[in-house]
Amino acid sequence: MEVQGLSWMGVRVSDLEATRSFFEKLGLEHRHSEGEMIAFGAKNGDTVEAFGPGDEDHRHFDSGPVVGFEVDDVEAARRELESAGVEFTGAIERGGGMRWAHFRGPDGILFELTGRD
Amino acid sequence: MEVQGLSWMGVRVSDLEATRSFFEKLGLEHRHSEGEMIAFGAKNGDTVEAFGPGDEDHRHFDSGPVVGFEVDDVEAARRELESAGVEFTGAIERGGGMRWAHFRGPDGILFELTGRD
Repeated sequence: MEVQGLSWMGVRVSDLEATRSFFEKLGLEHRHSEGEMIAFGAKNGDTVEAFGPGDEDHRHFDSGPVVGFEVDDVEAARRELESAGVEFTGAIERGGGMRWAHFRGPDGILFELTGRD
Repeated sequence: MEVQGLSWMGVRVSDLEATRSFFEKLGLEHRHSEGEMIAFGAKNGDTVEAFGPGDEDHRHFDSGPVVGFEVDDVEAARRELESAGVEFTGAIERGGGMRWAHFRGPDGILFELTGRD
C-alpha cells in the first residue's frame, strides 16, 4: 500500500459553534452540517470535520485530531495492515462518496484510511 | 487567508523505532532522521514527522497529532489570525525550505500553519 497524501482531519470538540467560527477564520469553506457534525473543505479538496459532544459515532476519537491517510483502495490497504498486525476499531464505513476505516498506531493513536468510493 | 490543504502531520511518540516501522507499513517513504525526529513523505509530497521522548522542540505538542494547514504566506496568515484573537505558541520557524508556526484552536488543540520558504 501507498499513502497518496493527508486528505482528511477529524476532531471531537466541546463547542461546535466556536469551532465553526475558528475554522472559518482559517478560510476553510463550510460544506455542510448534520446533527453534531460540521464539515469544511480546503482549496485542494481536503476535508476537515468536527464532531460535537453529542456525536455518538466518534467516541473512539480519544487521542486528539485524527488524520486520514488517503489510499487508492481502502479494502486492500486494510487487509495488508491487518496482516501486519495493525488493529482496526471497526468495519469499513461508506458515505458521501467516500469510504474509511480507523486504526491504532504507536501509543494507541487513532488514524484513518480514507478513500474514494 | 485560505488553507490550500492539509500538508503536514507531526506527533510525539514514546518509541521512535516502532513508529518508523508503523509508518513504513503504511507505505510512507522515510525521508530522513535527525536526533529524535523522523520524517516521512507521502506520494503527493505531504509530510509526516514523529518526535521521540527526548525531543525538546515539540514539548508543546500536548493535544495529540498536530495537523499543518498549508497557506501561501505564513506571516500574513499569522497576522490575520492574531488580529482575530488566535493564540500562537511561539515565533515563526524556518528550516528545510519550509516555514511554520503553531497556534491553539478549540479546546486548546494545537495546529500548525505550514508554508514554503
